[in-house]
Amino acid sequence: MTSFTFRRRFTIEWGQCDPAGIVFNCRFFEMFDASSWLLFEHALGVKAHKLGETFGIIGIALVDARANFLKPAKFGDEVEITSRISEFRRSSFDVEHRLTVGGELAVDGRESRVWAVRDQADPDKIKAAAIPPEVIARFG
Amino acid sequence: MTSFTFRRRFTIEWGQCDPAGIVFNCRFFEMFDASSWLLFEHALGVKAHKLGETFGIIGIALVDARANFLKPAKFGDEVEITSRISEFRRSSFDVEHRLTVGGELAVDGRESRVWAVRDQADPDKIKAAAIPPEVIARFG
Amino acid sequence: MTSFTFRRRFTIEWGQCDPAGIVFNCRFFEMFDASSWLLFEHALGVKAHKLGETFGIIGIALVDARANFLKPAKFGDEVEITSRISEFRRSSFDVEHRLTVGGELAVDGRESRVWAVRDQADPDKIKAAAIPPEVIARFG
Amino acid sequence: MTSFTFRRRFTIEWGQCDPAGIVFNCRFFEMFDASSWLLFEHALGVKAHKLGETFGIIGIALVDARANFLKPAKFGDEVEITSRISEFRRSSFDVEHRLTVGGELAVDGRESRVWAVRDQADPDKIKAAAIPPEVIARFG
Repeated sequence: MTSFTFRRRFTIEWGQCDPAGIVFNCRFFEMFDASSWLLFEHALGVKAHKLGETFGIIGIALVDARANFLKPAKFGDEVEITSRISEFRRSSFDVEHRLTVGGELAVDGRESRVWAVRDQADPDKIKAAAIPPEVIARFG
Repeated sequence: MTSFTFRRRFTIEWGQCDPAGIVFNCRFFEMFDASSWLLFEHALGVKAHKLGETFGIIGIALVDARANFLKPAKFGDEVEITSRISEFRRSSFDVEHRLTVGGELAVDGRESRVWAVRDQADPDKIKAAAIPPEVIARFG
Repeated sequence: MTSFTFRRRFTIEWGQCDPAGIVFNCRFFEMFDASSWLLFEHALGVKAHKLGETFGIIGIALVDARANFLKPAKFGDEVEITSRISEFRRSSFDVEHRLTVGGELAVDGRESRVWAVRDQADPDKIKAAAIPPEVIARFG
Repeated sequence: MTSFTFRRRFTIEWGQCDPAGIVFNCRFFEMFDASSWLLFEHALGVKAHKLGETFGIIGIALVDARANFLKPAKFGDEVEITSRISEFRRSSFDVEHRLTVGGELAVDGRESRVWAVRDQADPDKIKAAAIPPEVIARFG
């Protein structure tokens, strides 16, 4: 578990909710995706949209995503998402996202991502590359 | 043109963009919808999700939406949306949204909405009701 | 008004609806965007994702979109969208989309799009190019 | 593993893809959600939006969702999703979704859902109820 943590707060919008009046589940994955980009932006001090050219990568490609929905979040709820890297491996890593409503855990999300570069042999393909030690170091 | 204006700034997310690398157009209407709710929240001093019960309405139902796309907005762009009511009529009103990127107008949006209540004769239907003068007064 | 028409039917999904139980407005613009691509695919006999390379264009870029919401569409409703080009100009054109529910017009949408190519002088920019006569001819 | 299977095919839209030109991950969860509703519609012979009133439930509430992204799907790809119930428990069940592109598995998704009813003691809450044996029987 790395120590660097990124936290953001926002209010649930009408358009993010479904006929049950609560956030449509797939929207949480969208929120987590944005938080992962921001986690790297803040840990590395490089704007999210500059990560590609700065590190010579295509991106931090998602290979697995999971969420456990414990409590609903509804229109007007003020939520907080706390994100951190739970594990770095050679060319991949796991991100843990905890979304709370009123201090209570509502959605527990986990993503596995790879440090993705263009395949020199076939530019149409992407492959995982070793994560630079200086990148990992920034997460503490 | 009323004088009360609501302005918010945010950064374009990866997931809001399409294969051309720019915001997928329908997303702007989602942004404008959220800004309209926030415009009322700030003008009336009532949380967006409390507007319904506070004023006995179903909501501020959209009947017409239009946007003119002048310049693209892309991943990482910091945008600003400025919203105001351009005209109040008896039971409907127009909202004007101007989205800028780097100070330049990128999307010019307009919505027509009605002050919507449940139809007493047929609760499955909604109808437009007169907008209370005290509501209009809050927009200056 | 050109004579070629593209029509498709589908059922409204749970995730396309908002807390009022009806389609969230911005979703209609997403539906119209998909219908515009399909209109060209069927008129030209070229798969939508092959239009770019086939005609040397970036795409059919949206510059203006408008919708008039007459009746709501809700979860489970079977809707039909009928799309056609209402006018071709030198390098731009208008698309008209009529979405019906149970045969009644529910949303009346209009888009203005340009035949977009990469600007030779500045590859980061796109510009409008003349629409080939043979393309226009396919719409009747 | 139950034997009833629901299969549907569709083409990836421009607006479902991100700047990498591939389906934005959260969209797969939206596709799986729609497939789960359709799986029940076809197994039970009741339209998805009628399931609530027919069985006295609020819905088939999602409590856990997971997806493993093996291969990307891009604009224009024809995909197929095959869905089935992998396990029924007293008041919950697991749905397995396999999305293929050109016959190859691209996304492997799993959802856990509960048979959700309104809590009599507190109508603002929902709780899990026993799944009727006749419902389970329809899945073979």
